[in-house]
Amino acid sequence: MGSDAKWMQIVEEKRSLRDKALEPYLVSDMDQRLPRVHNVQDRSCVRDDPVAQEITDIDNVPKLVERLRSGDYTAEQVTRAYIRRAVIAHQLTNAITEAVFEDALRQARQLDSSFKESGKLKGPLHGVPVTVKDQFNVQGTDSTLGYIGRSFRPAEEDALIVRILKELGAVVLLKTNLPQSILWAETENPLWGRTDNPRDPELTPGGSTGGEAALLALHGSIFGLGTDIGGSIRIPGALNGLYALKPSSNRYPAAGVPGSTEGQENAPSSVGPLARDLESLCYVSRLIANSAPWEYDAKCAPLPWDEKVFEDIQTRPLVVGLILDDGVVRIHPPVERALREIAAKLTQDGHEVILWDTSDHHSCVQLMGQYYTADGGEDLRRDISAAGEPMIPHVQALIDRAETKSVYDYWQMNRTKTSMQQAYLAKWNAVRSPRGKQVDVLLGPTVPHTAIRHRALKYAGYTRIWNLLDYPALVIPVDIVRKDIDRRRESGYSPRNALDTWNWDLYDPDTMDGHPVSLQIIGKRFNEEKVLGAATVIERICKVDK
Amino acid sequence: MGSDAKWMQIVEEKRSLRDKALEPYLVSDMDQRLPRVHNVQDRSCVRDDPVAQEITDIDNVPKLVERLRSGDYTAEQVTRAYIRRAVIAHQLTNAITEAVFEDALRQARQLDSSFKESGKLKGPLHGVPVTVKDQFNVQGTDSTLGYIGRSFRPAEEDALIVRILKELGAVVLLKTNLPQSILWAETENPLWGRTDNPRDPELTPGGSTGGEAALLALHGSIFGLGTDIGGSIRIPGALNGLYALKPSSNRYPAAGVPGSTEGQENAPSSVGPLARDLESLCYVSRLIANSAPWEYDAKCAPLPWDEKVFEDIQTRPLVVGLILDDGVVRIHPPVERALREIAAKLTQDGHEVILWDTSDHHSCVQLMGQYYTADGGEDLRRDISAAGEPMIPHVQALIDRAETKSVYDYWQMNRTKTSMQQAYLAKWNAVRSPRGKQVDVLLGPTVPHTAIRHRALKYAGYTRIWNLLDYPALVIPVDIVRKDIDRRRESGYSPRNALDTWNWDLYDPDTMDGHPVSLQIIGKRFNEEKVLGAATVIERICKVDK
Repeated sequence: MGSDAKWMQIVEEKRSLRDKALEPYLVSDMDQRLPRVHNVQDRSCVRDDPVAQEITDIDNVPKLVERLRSGDYTAEQVTRAYIRRAVIAHQLTNAITEAVFEDALRQARQLDSSFKESGKLKGPLHGVPVTVKDQFNVQGTDSTLGYIGRSFRPAEEDALIVRILKELGAVVLLKTNLPQSILWAETENPLWGRTDNPRDPELTPGGSTGGEAALLALHGSIFGLGTDIGGSIRIPGALNGLYALKPSSNRYPAAGVPGSTEGQENAPSSVGPLARDLESLCYVSRLIANSAPWEYDAKCAPLPWDEKVFEDIQTRPLVVGLILDDGVVRIHPPVERALREIAAKLTQDGHEVILWDTSDHHSCVQLMGQYYTADGGEDLRRDISAAGEPMIPHVQALIDRAETKSVYDYWQMNRTKTSMQQAYLAKWNAVRSPRGKQVDVLLGPTVPHTAIRHRALKYAGYTRIWNLLDYPALVIPVDIVRKDIDRRRESGYSPRNALDTWNWDLYDPDTMDGHPVSLQIIGKRFNEEKVLGAATVIERICKVDK
Repeated sequence: MGSDAKWMQIVEEKRSLRDKALEPYLVSDMDQRLPRVHNVQDRSCVRDDPVAQEITDIDNVPKLVERLRSGDYTAEQVTRAYIRRAVIAHQLTNAITEAVFEDALRQARQLDSSFKESGKLKGPLHGVPVTVKDQFNVQGTDSTLGYIGRSFRPAEEDALIVRILKELGAVVLLKTNLPQSILWAETENPLWGRTDNPRDPELTPGGSTGGEAALLALHGSIFGLGTDIGGSIRIPGALNGLYALKPSSNRYPAAGVPGSTEGQENAPSSVGPLARDLESLCYVSRLIANSAPWEYDAKCAPLPWDEKVFEDIQTRPLVVGLILDDGVVRIHPPVERALREIAAKLTQDGHEVILWDTSDHHSCVQLMGQYYTADGGEDLRRDISAAGEPMIPHVQALIDRAETKSVYDYWQMNRTKTSMQQAYLAKWNAVRSPRGKQVDVLLGPTVPHTAIRHRALKYAGYTRIWNLLDYPALVIPVDIVRKDIDRRRESGYSPRNALDTWNWDLYDPDTMDGHPVSLQIIGKRFNEEKVLGAATVIERICKVDK
């Protein structure tokens, strides 16, 4: 054992502290909560508490606030209900890393007593439970980023966005799992272990914000915060049928959110939300933008919510650029079907849909990949070696292929990035629809596939491109895999490359049947309101047919 | 000669092409245009053309536009007038690098004929002559950045900001001198030589936007564009008694403006304007922000001009943080006198002035200095070696002290920078005036001295701090050195360090008498409207007493 002993001891201590916090809420009927694809939230039902069940079945944040305002529920009831269901969800998926249940309940009781006294809610998120990736500082808890070496270094104060949410009345319950280093689209680390897909433990929930996504899918949370530097909010959002937004960087404040490869500010991570319905995302995004985070976060863009943009786009025909293929990895038939069906519905409804040129995507995606380890992997190595923990295979691979660059070469990378951003913007500006309009948003895949086995996720090109360009991108669930209509893998297709082969071989409509199919809606930089507004239109169209 | 021959030949060709363009406008009475400190613009008077003299004596951009609108002058007359006076200014200071007079006159004639036909101005800058630092792409001309090796590589299209100004009706006349590498607060390079101070050829005009400043002081331009990554707009603005704004980076668009150490996006350069009065700066800043440059520049912040902020600050008592000393280099007595006098007038007028803590400035200034050569000077070396030209001493010194950093260390620099930005913002937010108000703007020195000898400028700490923090900073002339009231150097003062000694030894009220004293007004990030509004108030107060 020797040097191993230290990190293993930390793991044991951390897990035992967490388990102690969860212990009072554990259920013992896990054998009755079998894997299931449809109505996955039934797996985490609160059998012995119908009120808790009723509360946690409300998907919509403003509706939950209304029930608190009307006095139907107390904040303490809501907090307790979510604690109950979150712990069940955790028993099913291993999603929780840190619990602050006692703090949460104390805050909830304060909200209740002040509401009782004044008759007024604390704010527009009064009593709304919030969960955050294990990367957002919450006073008194660790922000591990999936590294054992960051254990037992509790944050001295809340991250700015956590403080903002609390000031609006929200109650932070717990923190959730992520991969070692954060830089992976799955959720596994030697400290907390692996988080499973809520529908099937054999499958990955995606990542890096995988703990949040697993919890939300199982109604263990109603609003979650993640980060995304390649797909980390969107991929777990997509694989779990959630609504999730990667804004442009520095639209949401990142102060107090330690990251991997911190100081890499040239193709930075974005802080963003995940939720169970679209209106919740719009509601909270509006509140955060209007809380003027730039007054407290030196990097945040001074952009209050633009209600006019959000409304206007909902009152006129959309012009949508359709992405069917990035030329690198072909999307699976159910994803393509969903895209084509929505495109057809949009056209039928009087919107314009034009095919979008993606010939420049591959080079953008490749360049984005260079940012993660432009330091030769030094940042990762240091965090790994802090406690002498083992590397997960993905981090090992990242470090193995890392090339050490000079600062001069790094600056040249930045120049290339800026010219790609400039060229993409020029391309967007140049395109006109048949009616002569500019494109409002793009609609495309999030990942080329639906949920897949653990350690099998290899391609994030459809999400990563929007990190390089710093464009806001939203994922929304639009359908499920339907084995009866989704065609089988064509035997005639010859894949273009190793990644395409890998992805094509993964496709199996029988085993994938019922899993969520999600699409991505993308806008120009800082066009979050336009993206959310367009999504509202698109979802309305999809729902009519459901 | 051998390898020397190549760069010397380029210099000869470039200068001869420029001189040929200027030749028709040269004056031969240089012996009558002696150095002078007061009314320096009299040195460049257009003796043989009273209309040209009258036109170029108008300092105010909107007033000039009014005269064009009323038909008092044609655009061609205005263009010709400025060409005449710019060439005289050049003969006095060596400010011009490239002239596009024929293009300018052709555009002016087009403006005139369309105005004659339609009775309408092309836009709010119809016929306004504009000059730009030799760094802004103007189709068909080189952007040398003071490097011989960038000669004969003409730009294929105009920089975005040049295009915007032209679309608003402006006429670009010429480009102006800057130091080799741009990264210096004086103006000298082996390609174009040295630009002199308009008042005295023995003195520097400051830099790097020194050609613009010399030209503006001598009425050879009415509106100029520069860049600033440490004081390059503000220092020449200050030494020449001009109005000059360094906005937050990416408030003005930088697309099509090649820079030194390009790709260093972490403490970047800002594009900003210089003018002969404050209203011109406000007028054009408003126009540029309202032209939505972010639609065409991928990095530009989507911030239209906020007229409300600009107006509001002019209608209520200001709260001003007063910077008298940064603890590193003590300011000269005339600068201190001007600051104290304005502070007293502000207080008398009902505004609040509180002393500002600068104990954190030195570390910020030091860190900013590391960005210029974090690549070990590689960027500079490559540009220098392209034509094998000699280095000016300042560039040699920059390269000599450059430390090669790893990308990992560079990222740590960025982290330090971000925490400094965060701490400064927290400091600003925490301060309250006696009446309990937040500070609106800071008021402080631009440089610790007034105009000094060539190659003597050593300290840019009072400007550089605002590049690290990315705060907008405006310089305005507030007074002149007055030998009768500005006290002599105290014999008792013991300087704090070598820089302070150097600066203190420079002070001589007799030789400095009459030179402009300029101050800096600083706002929080992206608070350009507030800074310009506060400056309007402060200038009104100063002028009452003049």
